[in-house]
Amino acid sequence: MPILESTGLKEGKDFYLAFSPERIDPGNEVYKTENTPKIIGGLSKKSTQIAKLLYDQVIEEVIPVSSANAAEMVKLLENTFRVVNIALVNEIATLCDKLNIDIWEIINAAKTKPYGFMPFYPGPGVGGHCIPIDPLYLSWKAKEHGFETKFIDLASSVNESMPQYMIERLEKILSNRRKIIDKSKILIIGVAYKKDVMDLRESPAIAVINLLQKREANISYFDPYFPFLKINSIDMKPIRLNANNLKKYDCALVMTDHSNVDYKFLVDNLKLIFDTRNIFGKLGIKSRNIIKL
Amino acid sequence: MPILESTGLKEGKDFYLAFSPERIDPGNEVYKTENTPKIIGGLSKKSTQIAKLLYDQVIEEVIPVSSANAAEMVKLLENTFRVVNIALVNEIATLCDKLNIDIWEIINAAKTKPYGFMPFYPGPGVGGHCIPIDPLYLSWKAKEHGFETKFIDLASSVNESMPQYMIERLEKILSNRRKIIDKSKILIIGVAYKKDVMDLRESPAIAVINLLQKREANISYFDPYFPFLKINSIDMKPIRLNANNLKKYDCALVMTDHSNVDYKFLVDNLKLIFDTRNIFGKLGIKSRNIIKL
Repeated sequence: MPILESTGLKEGKDFYLAFSPERIDPGNEVYKTENTPKIIGGLSKKSTQIAKLLYDQVIEEVIPVSSANAAEMVKLLENTFRVVNIALVNEIATLCDKLNIDIWEIINAAKTKPYGFMPFYPGPGVGGHCIPIDPLYLSWKAKEHGFETKFIDLASSVNESMPQYMIERLEKILSNRRKIIDKSKILIIGVAYKKDVMDLRESPAIAVINLLQKREANISYFDPYFPFLKINSIDMKPIRLNANNLKKYDCALVMTDHSNVDYKFLVDNLKLIFDTRNIFGKLGIKSRNIIKL
Repeated sequence: MPILESTGLKEGKDFYLAFSPERIDPGNEVYKTENTPKIIGGLSKKSTQIAKLLYDQVIEEVIPVSSANAAEMVKLLENTFRVVNIALVNEIATLCDKLNIDIWEIINAAKTKPYGFMPFYPGPGVGGHCIPIDPLYLSWKAKEHGFETKFIDLASSVNESMPQYMIERLEKILSNRRKIIDKSKILIIGVAYKKDVMDLRESPAIAVINLLQKREANISYFDPYFPFLKINSIDMKPIRLNANNLKKYDCALVMTDHSNVDYKFLVDNLKLIFDTRNIFGKLGIKSRNIIKL
């Protein structure tokens, strides 16, 4: 607004300014832009009304709030809720491993509770353009006011530690088979930050590949959405999924649970799988060679 | 089990032992014991089956899990989820106060998101028999394995700080009217740990009354569920809600939002109200004399 008003024009009189945060869930087949209620907050009441009129033409439900700041805070609350809950279940997952409890069984049972619970799932870290990043804006704004956002800071730190935790788990899995990461042939299945999207932004798979490179593992990957990978120190082409190729690997890591992958074929032809997404569990595929997060 | 097996009898043969955690939401009119799915985990498969047969007689859906440990972990995950999310929204509420943003408006707008969000509400602290306590069992068990449950520890610390935060907010509210807590006449409305229950366990209202006593405030209370209060240093009788009584108070604190209270009458007769539950907002009662958490 300072830029706009530097022209001498006034908000709420000469021009109208409103803010509407993005609410988008890539890959969601039910909720698209049109049927997801849209938050809108103007710098003046009139701006909110005008912006609402505009969005009313294309969005089923427009929710006005009292200010542009409030509109931004709504999105920050939504994304902070997600990043904290993902981090919480990541922490519980690492604890469950120590207690020899299957975290996926626990979540599936807990979600039968008809009130007061919402399932979140552990994984190798959080990616995408919103969840890992937006809460840090709030953290930064809070610091300006001398306020420490302890939950956001803890969540970021827990989620950022997950790729390293994947390496530690992989180390243990290989060591149980009298192998070490260095020189082992590792196959990464899925590099996108979440399933069924062609999006690498903040993907934990990239972090894991980087860590494995440092350990001098022999890494290949497969992802139906990525015909090549070229990021900083990573320059790879995907392998073909045939029995001959698959049997070469000491261990495969499922990092993304894309729907268009033949998981039955994988389990039939791979020696060892570390499944960080419980995709085999979801599909009801059982094998001694599958180690779950 | 060690106690039972010390008799020489064996679990899974001579006796059958299973564990089913409590899932209960006092005051919930929809979900009672009968229609809330029940988790059950036995020490042996047969124990799980037998316990399931028993519960099947009275509970609509019984969910068997792989062990008694898993059954306990389900409840710990459910309650940890709640305590962490309440603490998270408490932290965001204190931040919103600094940013001059109405947290209740933000939550109401955020909950229009049809996926990935679940509303939790800030308040003067958490009470009851489960939420503030159960996660500490998990924290303790984790420590035995050298594991630090950072989210539980942070959540407990944030929630436990809320009564003190209520005092700080009250101090600011009174100071804006050129008053101080000491010697002020303060009315506590609601002392139960949550609405519509006659239960004081871990109630934050008690913590707030204790803190106010230390500050030598002149405290009274009203709660339709408690005809007297007698706990440690607290020995009080409730006031009668009439105009003459109400006008005496410098400030009233709504600590519990019971349904059977005439809030319209309160706002018409009280000089100043600090509403920690946004009950007036929920009822659409507006007044300059109401300050929201």
